[in-house]
Amino acid sequence: MRLPLFAVDDVIKRALNEDISYLDTTTDYLIEEDAMGDAYLLAKAQGVLCGLEIAMRVFSLIDPAFTFQAQKQDGDRVEKGERIASLHGHTRALLKGERTALNLLQHLSGIATATAQAVELVAGTGATIVDTRKTLPGLRSLQKYAVTMGGGRNHRYNLSDAAMLKDNHIDAGGGITAAIGKLRGRVGHMVNIEVETRNLDEVREALAAGADIIMLDNMDCGTMREAVRINEGRAVLEASGGITAATLRAVAETGVDIISIGALTHSVQAFDISMKYGR
Amino acid sequence: MRLPLFAVDDVIKRALNEDISYLDTTTDYLIEEDAMGDAYLLAKAQGVLCGLEIAMRVFSLIDPAFTFQAQKQDGDRVEKGERIASLHGHTRALLKGERTALNLLQHLSGIATATAQAVELVAGTGATIVDTRKTLPGLRSLQKYAVTMGGGRNHRYNLSDAAMLKDNHIDAGGGITAAIGKLRGRVGHMVNIEVETRNLDEVREALAAGADIIMLDNMDCGTMREAVRINEGRAVLEASGGITAATLRAVAETGVDIISIGALTHSVQAFDISMKYGR
Amino acid sequence: MRLPLFAVDDVIKRALNEDISYLDTTTDYLIEEDAMGDAYLLAKAQGVLCGLEIAMRVFSLIDPAFTFQAQKQDGDRVEKGERIASLHGHTRALLKGERTALNLLQHLSGIATATAQAVELVAGTGATIVDTRKTLPGLRSLQKYAVTMGGGRNHRYNLSDAAMLKDNHIDAGGGITAAIGKLRGRVGHMVNIEVETRNLDEVREALAAGADIIMLDNMDCGTMREAVRINEGRAVLEASGGITAATLRAVAETGVDIISIGALTHSVQAFDISMKYGR
Amino acid sequence: MRLPLFAVDDVIKRALNEDISYLDTTTDYLIEEDAMGDAYLLAKAQGVLCGLEIAMRVFSLIDPAFTFQAQKQDGDRVEKGERIASLHGHTRALLKGERTALNLLQHLSGIATATAQAVELVAGTGATIVDTRKTLPGLRSLQKYAVTMGGGRNHRYNLSDAAMLKDNHIDAGGGITAAIGKLRGRVGHMVNIEVETRNLDEVREALAAGADIIMLDNMDCGTMREAVRINEGRAVLEASGGITAATLRAVAETGVDIISIGALTHSVQAFDISMKYGR
Amino acid sequence: MRLPLFAVDDVIKRALNEDISYLDTTTDYLIEEDAMGDAYLLAKAQGVLCGLEIAMRVFSLIDPAFTFQAQKQDGDRVEKGERIASLHGHTRALLKGERTALNLLQHLSGIATATAQAVELVAGTGATIVDTRKTLPGLRSLQKYAVTMGGGRNHRYNLSDAAMLKDNHIDAGGGITAAIGKLRGRVGHMVNIEVETRNLDEVREALAAGADIIMLDNMDCGTMREAVRINEGRAVLEASGGITAATLRAVAETGVDIISIGALTHSVQAFDISMKYGR
Amino acid sequence: MRLPLFAVDDVIKRALNEDISYLDTTTDYLIEEDAMGDAYLLAKAQGVLCGLEIAMRVFSLIDPAFTFQAQKQDGDRVEKGERIASLHGHTRALLKGERTALNLLQHLSGIATATAQAVELVAGTGATIVDTRKTLPGLRSLQKYAVTMGGGRNHRYNLSDAAMLKDNHIDAGGGITAAIGKLRGRVGHMVNIEVETRNLDEVREALAAGADIIMLDNMDCGTMREAVRINEGRAVLEASGGITAATLRAVAETGVDIISIGALTHSVQAFDISMKYGR
Repeated sequence: MRLPLFAVDDVIKRALNEDISYLDTTTDYLIEEDAMGDAYLLAKAQGVLCGLEIAMRVFSLIDPAFTFQAQKQDGDRVEKGERIASLHGHTRALLKGERTALNLLQHLSGIATATAQAVELVAGTGATIVDTRKTLPGLRSLQKYAVTMGGGRNHRYNLSDAAMLKDNHIDAGGGITAAIGKLRGRVGHMVNIEVETRNLDEVREALAAGADIIMLDNMDCGTMREAVRINEGRAVLEASGGITAATLRAVAETGVDIISIGALTHSVQAFDISMKYGR
Repeated sequence: MRLPLFAVDDVIKRALNEDISYLDTTTDYLIEEDAMGDAYLLAKAQGVLCGLEIAMRVFSLIDPAFTFQAQKQDGDRVEKGERIASLHGHTRALLKGERTALNLLQHLSGIATATAQAVELVAGTGATIVDTRKTLPGLRSLQKYAVTMGGGRNHRYNLSDAAMLKDNHIDAGGGITAAIGKLRGRVGHMVNIEVETRNLDEVREALAAGADIIMLDNMDCGTMREAVRINEGRAVLEASGGITAATLRAVAETGVDIISIGALTHSVQAFDISMKYGR
Repeated sequence: MRLPLFAVDDVIKRALNEDISYLDTTTDYLIEEDAMGDAYLLAKAQGVLCGLEIAMRVFSLIDPAFTFQAQKQDGDRVEKGERIASLHGHTRALLKGERTALNLLQHLSGIATATAQAVELVAGTGATIVDTRKTLPGLRSLQKYAVTMGGGRNHRYNLSDAAMLKDNHIDAGGGITAAIGKLRGRVGHMVNIEVETRNLDEVREALAAGADIIMLDNMDCGTMREAVRINEGRAVLEASGGITAATLRAVAETGVDIISIGALTHSVQAFDISMKYGR
Repeated sequence: MRLPLFAVDDVIKRALNEDISYLDTTTDYLIEEDAMGDAYLLAKAQGVLCGLEIAMRVFSLIDPAFTFQAQKQDGDRVEKGERIASLHGHTRALLKGERTALNLLQHLSGIATATAQAVELVAGTGATIVDTRKTLPGLRSLQKYAVTMGGGRNHRYNLSDAAMLKDNHIDAGGGITAAIGKLRGRVGHMVNIEVETRNLDEVREALAAGADIIMLDNMDCGTMREAVRINEGRAVLEASGGITAATLRAVAETGVDIISIGALTHSVQAFDISMKYGR
Repeated sequence: MRLPLFAVDDVIKRALNEDISYLDTTTDYLIEEDAMGDAYLLAKAQGVLCGLEIAMRVFSLIDPAFTFQAQKQDGDRVEKGERIASLHGHTRALLKGERTALNLLQHLSGIATATAQAVELVAGTGATIVDTRKTLPGLRSLQKYAVTMGGGRNHRYNLSDAAMLKDNHIDAGGGITAAIGKLRGRVGHMVNIEVETRNLDEVREALAAGADIIMLDNMDCGTMREAVRINEGRAVLEASGGITAATLRAVAETGVDIISIGALTHSVQAFDISMKYGR
Repeated sequence: MRLPLFAVDDVIKRALNEDISYLDTTTDYLIEEDAMGDAYLLAKAQGVLCGLEIAMRVFSLIDPAFTFQAQKQDGDRVEKGERIASLHGHTRALLKGERTALNLLQHLSGIATATAQAVELVAGTGATIVDTRKTLPGLRSLQKYAVTMGGGRNHRYNLSDAAMLKDNHIDAGGGITAAIGKLRGRVGHMVNIEVETRNLDEVREALAAGADIIMLDNMDCGTMREAVRINEGRAVLEASGGITAATLRAVAETGVDIISIGALTHSVQAFDISMKYGR
């Protein structure tokens, strides 16, 4: 897993603390403490798996004796009815961790699956699907990881690592040209600068001012095609704003380099995976 | 706000820490430190608002000078184009907090809106819409709060506060009757016991054994109607499993007391709200 | 152990942080770093053991090489002079963890022992001994666990998981009947409602209003007997308020279902256990 | 308050998190959000108050509008029936914070009261009452503060700030003389060294070796008197081990300087204080 | 202050927790609780101030009544003997916070001062002074902030926000060209790529492969001048490795764009500031 | 390692969180997940090693498969070019942890080395080198540990564990004699009292008042010699204030017991250690 283990553990402990105030009042009073059991994870739909190691970590944090065998791994396509992993551990731990593990696995697989669908829609166009900062509180690193498992790439992680000039920044900075100039003189040399533009005049100004990336904000396809032409490959062009499955292919065919989709992380459809007891 | 302030602050700080490693490389280098500004929140669709105070708290944690005037409050229905709140504070703070505030507000309003739609669909039937434990890690208390703002009610908060007998518990406990008996002798006297049932025989057994709540798991409407008849008002009956907008009304009309919907919290469609600068 | 390991670890780390600012200025300067040693735990009185695994965890967090063999386990009755467990590990770790481990073990065994004494006093009456929310800050889950190890059961864990109507709630709600009615329409369907009553009229009103549990607050035994008669087995009856060892049996014999005792957790007499070096 | 505010806040937040998973299901559904109310704290017995500001902080963390007027302060003697403080704030906050505030206040006042009783018993003898490291996990700083409010003084805070040679240290160090010698050469110059002794020979050896403090461990009064004579005022002499109210005066009259009592913090009897609503 | 307040507070609370286990045994026993006092900060040398608001925050966290008036602010040059700020608050708080406040202020001003000296040395050359990831654990955001207050700029914040190819990456990636190619296809579009080079051949290869930034690692000035010539302004050139005050000007005059200096943050000379009591 | 493992882990996790927001964008995209590698640590100068186990713990927290063999240990003198330890683990982990591990190791070895140099300068004089509370936020326990590895000893850890009377305390306490008297009556019996003095009159008064330790603050060597004479071995004498390598020996030869040097921890020169890949 690419994410730092202790950061993942923090997310899991928060989730477990939510789910267990002090005991599992059903399990702890009915299941013998030393009972061991088996279970397996089953895909209930077709999609892309993400979060398996994270979900398995839930059980390890509850039960040092827990082991699992993965039939699939993050980024793999799974079919409805396919077995994802076989689990073995204390029955109490399996029952206590089930919901928390599935909540994580279904959410992240939902993101990976939706991303993969978007990636497929733009196949062959040269456009890249990326996420945004429209993530859920406390879950950004996991969500951004899931986007890459679905074949997408990551936009900037946060406000610190890249600059993006919006209306207010541009107004405060005295116009696109002046604002970029000021920023260049202050930000670190590793920082790229993106400019949000609303029309072709702004695109031209951003280009002239040396923007590294230009966002084409809510433009129609014709305008974006023209922006691509004007750009002549100088800046990276990013289409953004209200792009849906219905319009995605057309946007990609305008020749933009990047298409950012907030819904990948802000409106996630859980991917259906269930946990069955037995082998 | 009903949630403990310091618990909400923990969620917000986690989100801000994700979004700001150390500075806002655009804002801090372009906007004057002492510049003050105004902004307002605008609904971009019709729905139910939730999370306004939480979202406003984001700015307060960044800027002690921040103030706001609410035109709407949690639980209010908002129309597309309606103004939700007017904000005033340091321009830097408005820009730095915008994304985190909107991420929270849009997510919680999405839950409230979807809940309200479900509640409306069952209006007049006597059925109550409730959530589940299928929540996103670290966000359970906020999500459960949003469900109530949409007019729904909360299922058990976690594994500690109520008992729910599933297959494995029942098998380990020696059948429904024996399992309930064992639990009654051990759980606290404030704890209710729910039993998952898959057919009418199990419903009858659960009733005979004195279950407080009986879940009708993935049953068709005819079977649920029969369960309602058999029950004669003794246990609380909860319909659960794969219920969608299309089937919800029919389920409610079977006479069940409770309909639990995991999608309210596991598959949230963000509700579109935007933040505009100026008054 | 029924408590989540990482939650227990948080308690232990807090305790160790209190006890070790940066070194053990005696041990670290006198004992060789690689010296190994043996020790054992000895009961200095008769009682019920609780917290053994928790206490052993103290040493494991300091010393990965630590091992122990338990002669007794949580819930076991121990006699004065009986050996509880044999410990082996780095001598430095044994010396550094001793106080923290004993502080936990003696406190929890004190609770279990006092609970067991109360349980014994009501033996045969049908009354159940339960705890309250009068717990020590940061120790509730451990203390409630200890009560069950002594043979008692748990009252509600906290304000979120069950409703209890006190004077002020009843006044604000417009009387017992109205208050229960309002609550029923709002709390989740898994939530039980308890009503505090001060006299038989209130008991009758609470019964008529459908209270799940009725607390008989500081009533004399005669009144409680009458309450039991009136109740006819409908609500769960809980005796509460100033019950001591001297009065406990008489209270139990009134026929109440539940007797709650705050002193089990708010006025704990440490149970004497010592740690001896050597085998 | 002498304790750092943010450290106290951590203790309180932990306690509130235990008591409120996400809402107060009684209060939040019955009491109007903007209702304000009054309450007061009343001593139900005679003793020494401790923890008032800490208890009041509980309400402040829930309700920024909370205010109080103290009629008594930490260290004050209170009589049964005396009013301690008057509280004003949102009714919801008063109800939500009551249990947590009282749990803290009753525990700390219990410690202060027991300490004051011990101090009174040794009045005029020159002996000082001190606590030990036998504290409850997470509560050491509060408990040690309470001891001083009862008129006692604090033994070392933890393993880092003073050295205490026990059997095992002495054995590992090659006897008292050698062990003290080794320690002197390694510990910081601000660190005092105490030696546990079991008989007069060990007292003599510790004295000769220059121990700063000598603990007389479980000695009878005659032996302690002799130790005092031998000491001739050179080391500080500390009586320790199984000292009760019955024996305390006699121990003090042996002429020892210090009497340490673990029960002050490990076996605390809560001091009865109640919170009444109204003015 | 540009850093998020709650992040700064975390650093301060950690520092105060280190410095106050439970009380200030000198101050709390000698200074009256309600005594108020004045103090001021005095520069004991010539340099650049940094951390004033952070240092003042130390006192605010201890004493809500604390106020201060700044005569200087972060980034200002101060002369020996100049007054920096006037402080007013509880005497206990002034005494308790002094060391922690000065530790922060002296460290950050030390960084700003050293940075300013480096910046001055390269004045007029077009070279920019930047920091590195050689920061002290837990202090990176503060240290990087101090570098900018001294007139320097920030290199990448961490491993997540920009790519830097070192030997091992290049070997694993199959050479500079192949490695850059692979990275371009995977990292986000906001991420710049820097390549470490050891000779002019590598510089040429990195240029050809389209590196955004090229690090000239431990090269002599002649080689760097040649690299500048070869580069023809295409990539950003960064000189790195063992650059001292003695060699800094010469390095800058080679024409490189960026000079990174680890010592700015890994070998900090505290800047002498003292706190005087009185007005 | 003498420091508690979980406390060290907290420092390391903070450092890793600073350095990895969510991935290592270079390493994770270029190095195969299962690639294993070797590396070793090399001293680039002569000095005293400190922090090896701490640095190795960085890798263990990232990579459970990580192992190392130490050729040197904390407190050992190392020569330029000597190998310190051999590392083996996942290549990704080696690359991700390198900077954090070296930052810790170089800082702590820098402290140990500077301390050892000071200790050497005073060899044979009977003076002991100690640190101060002038430490970097969050690093006190590690820094104080490093001082002892360099052969120094620790001054008080913090404000809680020993008393030090400064001007303001003395003024508030009514002069040295009165202040010491008041303190003796209130602080714990394990607490030593140090008095800051500025001239011989104050030294005499402190001696007469029974100070345990007397600090000679910024006195010249002649005055200190006189203080030693006056003291006649009664109090521990500590020289403090502006002592440098140039003056250290002379100060030690005055006969003082203790020399405290703030620069040991507030102005640390990192000790150069590099990590090489391969065996």
